[in-house]
Amino acid sequence: MEESAPRRGRVTFGWLVGLSQVLGLVSVVLTGVWMGQYRGGFAWDGSAQQFNVHPLCMVLGLVFLQGDAAIVVYRVFHNESKRTIKMLHGFIHMLALVISILGFVAVFNYHKVAKIPDMYSLHSWVGMATLVMFFLQWVIGLLFFLFPLASPWLRAWYLPIHVFCGLGLLVMAVGSSLLGITEKLLFSLPTYAQFHPEGVLANVLGLLLVCFGGVVSYVVTKEEYRRPPSPEEESLSVYFKTLSEGQCPSSP
Amino acid sequence: MEESAPRRGRVTFGWLVGLSQVLGLVSVVLTGVWMGQYRGGFAWDGSAQQFNVHPLCMVLGLVFLQGDAAIVVYRVFHNESKRTIKMLHGFIHMLALVISILGFVAVFNYHKVAKIPDMYSLHSWVGMATLVMFFLQWVIGLLFFLFPLASPWLRAWYLPIHVFCGLGLLVMAVGSSLLGITEKLLFSLPTYAQFHPEGVLANVLGLLLVCFGGVVSYVVTKEEYRRPPSPEEESLSVYFKTLSEGQCPSSP
Repeated sequence: MEESAPRRGRVTFGWLVGLSQVLGLVSVVLTGVWMGQYRGGFAWDGSAQQFNVHPLCMVLGLVFLQGDAAIVVYRVFHNESKRTIKMLHGFIHMLALVISILGFVAVFNYHKVAKIPDMYSLHSWVGMATLVMFFLQWVIGLLFFLFPLASPWLRAWYLPIHVFCGLGLLVMAVGSSLLGITEKLLFSLPTYAQFHPEGVLANVLGLLLVCFGGVVSYVVTKEEYRRPPSPEEESLSVYFKTLSEGQCPSSP
Repeated sequence: MEESAPRRGRVTFGWLVGLSQVLGLVSVVLTGVWMGQYRGGFAWDGSAQQFNVHPLCMVLGLVFLQGDAAIVVYRVFHNESKRTIKMLHGFIHMLALVISILGFVAVFNYHKVAKIPDMYSLHSWVGMATLVMFFLQWVIGLLFFLFPLASPWLRAWYLPIHVFCGLGLLVMAVGSSLLGITEKLLFSLPTYAQFHPEGVLANVLGLLLVCFGGVVSYVVTKEEYRRPPSPEEESLSVYFKTLSEGQCPSSP
């Protein structure tokens, strides 16, 4: 009996991680199909095809890779050393950051060529806030957790804020994407209200992104799926706590 | 020293709750000002003024009251009995539900009169999913926690899901509102790209809603601000756990 409950937990965990990967990858593919099939494909020449690089980069970088860096690194790899895990976490986030910045450059450059004003919409405000905060979160995380610049009490004080902000940024990235989908459809699809297949595809993409954010948030906040801390980490008390469990792991 | 830390925590808690109330109330007022000042005010005659009832009801009901029911009831009132708290929690959510349904009726009725198609946009899909799930969450919460229909193990199993879904629904409500703001501006404000005051006001409203969701989420998930459980609740282990703390309250 004692073994069956954790094993059941690991099976559910496996299904949820699998589900998150399917949701995330299908979202990336659907974004590519939307831009490729209905919006003329991709280019880097200041044309509308250059704009199309923007949604693909944001869904791949700011949503999928940011979410995966949380799940895959801190939840899936239980047997690697904490330092390896942290480096992988930082590396995937760096990749996410580079792809996101590429996505931002694509749209700003397209706006410049097409003489479209920048930064007037709610999508641009929320999106820019997300990217800037994501960059700050990455730099502070690097300085505090990968390099020994912060004292143990500072790391312990900052870790819950880092975790809270990380999830918050994923949610903001999903929200920005939904705003971008709505903007793009209202600007470019006059037949949106007639349930044109492009509009339905983009709406489905929006719902998939919401589900991806939901599943990642659930896996990340569930205590049961936490990587077991080493004795040194235990003594520092700097590890994830949860929203969704009734029992504390360090209590008897 | 031992008393100063909790007191400092209570002071921060007070400021955060105050901040959430300011953010929430200013959001409701700004929505009213936007609709009243720039969109011709309110009516119930199938006109564009009837549409204006929709954003006001959604921000008041699905965002502000839903968020407040979580903070005010489960975080502020520490000296009331658990049953009183639960009834207040259920009552505020019922109020939020009634106001939200009124907001939905307003827009569907306006669409019917103006012969505008329903349920084609991402805003409508996410908004409808939020309302339906909010209704289900309320009914299940009522049956499981207010009336003795569920056994203790079922309540204990469902509580973390209820908490997770509650926060998720608040986030979805904020996201739906941002989508609605974007839709309304792109449909009705041709000068949005020229930083028209109406567009700036609505963008600021969007950011305030994001901040409201962020502060409420932080207060609700922070272990330190949890209502201390009674011995009976402690033995059931059915209470909030957190994402944002390094120490477990029930550990020595």
